[in-house]
Amino acid sequence: MYTFKECQDIIEKRLMEIKLPAEPASLYDPIHYVFGSEGKRIRPCLTLMACNLFTDSIEVSINPALAIELFHNFTLLHDDIMDNSELRRGRLTVHKKWNNNVAILSGDAMLIKAYDYLSQSPGSVLADLLSVFNQTALQVCEGQQYDMDFESEMEVTAADYLKMIELKTSVLIAASLKIGAICGKAGKMDSDLLYQFGRNLGIAFQLQDDLLDVYADPNVFGKSGGGDIVANKKTFLLMNALTLASGKTLAILTDWLGKKDFNKDEKIRAVTDIYNSLKINEITESKIVELFSKARLLLDKVSVEKERKKILEQFALQLMKREK
Amino acid sequence: MYTFKECQDIIEKRLMEIKLPAEPASLYDPIHYVFGSEGKRIRPCLTLMACNLFTDSIEVSINPALAIELFHNFTLLHDDIMDNSELRRGRLTVHKKWNNNVAILSGDAMLIKAYDYLSQSPGSVLADLLSVFNQTALQVCEGQQYDMDFESEMEVTAADYLKMIELKTSVLIAASLKIGAICGKAGKMDSDLLYQFGRNLGIAFQLQDDLLDVYADPNVFGKSGGGDIVANKKTFLLMNALTLASGKTLAILTDWLGKKDFNKDEKIRAVTDIYNSLKINEITESKIVELFSKARLLLDKVSVEKERKKILEQFALQLMKREK
Repeated sequence: MYTFKECQDIIEKRLMEIKLPAEPASLYDPIHYVFGSEGKRIRPCLTLMACNLFTDSIEVSINPALAIELFHNFTLLHDDIMDNSELRRGRLTVHKKWNNNVAILSGDAMLIKAYDYLSQSPGSVLADLLSVFNQTALQVCEGQQYDMDFESEMEVTAADYLKMIELKTSVLIAASLKIGAICGKAGKMDSDLLYQFGRNLGIAFQLQDDLLDVYADPNVFGKSGGGDIVANKKTFLLMNALTLASGKTLAILTDWLGKKDFNKDEKIRAVTDIYNSLKINEITESKIVELFSKARLLLDKVSVEKERKKILEQFALQLMKREK
Repeated sequence: MYTFKECQDIIEKRLMEIKLPAEPASLYDPIHYVFGSEGKRIRPCLTLMACNLFTDSIEVSINPALAIELFHNFTLLHDDIMDNSELRRGRLTVHKKWNNNVAILSGDAMLIKAYDYLSQSPGSVLADLLSVFNQTALQVCEGQQYDMDFESEMEVTAADYLKMIELKTSVLIAASLKIGAICGKAGKMDSDLLYQFGRNLGIAFQLQDDLLDVYADPNVFGKSGGGDIVANKKTFLLMNALTLASGKTLAILTDWLGKKDFNKDEKIRAVTDIYNSLKINEITESKIVELFSKARLLLDKVSVEKERKKILEQFALQLMKREK
């Protein structure tokens, strides 16, 4: 069995070997730039680990895994233009380092290259892999569109938010596992179970991320929190707070959401106080526990020896145990 | 055998039937909008016609043909953002009617949808189709990048220009034919011949387009000419003029290229006069004839009865006979 670290090393090595033409440089340099920065490679590793549940020969899943990592980075590249983000993994985003046109086009090339890797899968599984990949890719676009739409929509609910992060984040985690399972010649039942395991894990992971943005210890988590609060980001936390707050608390919260000029730290403190008074952290944590338990039950049902599932189980646990 | 008109009707009908989810509307409405405008559908028709050379059952080539039309429209959508174009087929471009973010993301979705159609090809040809499609798609991106790079590069030659239009325009025409041939179970030799036929035809077609921009009768061609001259677009005509002009002629031409404030009609007249004096129209026309003759010879070599090739031959002839 391959550990997560071993999977990471395989992916990192193969990413470094991606062959692209030298010219036109303005099309291909940004792609090298993107893969020159370190990523956790969670999704392609999930593909390898899912394949590894069913076979010791995971070579067959490497190209599809690379396709998923290329696709994921393509979405980040285009999302960064749309969100006008300055930084990604501590470095300038492509559209800031070059310009929007370069970022649009090199993103397009990255998506095509993702399909190029996926196309190099064995003929016996190619159509199945494409089917999962196409559906997922379109859903990720839908998730990004909902995310942007929510910025200007007033009537977003916690349920809408869960739907959005399911599309934007969790279906790709789910598909990474399913694609690995298909490569490992898993049966339909098992690959669907792994998909659902990933879907629940992915939503839990995103909620954890939202929670950490408010409640993380910046010394441990590595980024200073509260960004979502400052930006009025319609997260699970905020949507629940708006539903649960009433009277004076709701008035204060609404007031903070409407303010144009404010001291960031003051706003973070005030909104966090409201979250605390409404026990939003507990609500979110219990939602995470619920999703994570569901995920574990689904993994339990996958019809391979318990022993083979340990690495994936441990990895899921690690993923959820990011320090507060 | 299917005529071009019959192929057009098949494609148009199937494009109208494309099923997309209703939500999120801002992702899918632009795609419906794009296909609500009439196009000539040259590329998907070429796929059907190429398939029809080898078999009477062209049904198998319809999904790949739709994939090509979706891909082509995806490139137009993203190119329009990059070129900041106002109009496309007489209607507002997507990024003008909505905004850049909507245009980026619905373009991405269109590219994914193109792969979705391509993926619905028979397993026996799927890998071959993907291989041609991926390579071509990446080359089209390269062509667009060169086209943008040329705007700020001083040392562009006529050869550079030919290379650029080969990538940006002609490889997709070539691939449309090759993909149709593969669907029709053509041998490697024949599908390669059709690719080369399309490549030459595509370059000739683009040169014809450049020529018509300067020399077309606007009453017949439907758009007023000279746009390339006004914009200093580095076309085959301009690159040749810059090479051939000397002395006073070169000075006048360079002067016009450097002017910031000018009367458009005056500039068009002046530069056209220089083109005439240097016989740029004759040079371009003979290049077109050369490419077109090469294309016809390649089509001649395709190993099916002469009778079956007539429709494609006639179509190529029509394509080149757009009125001046």
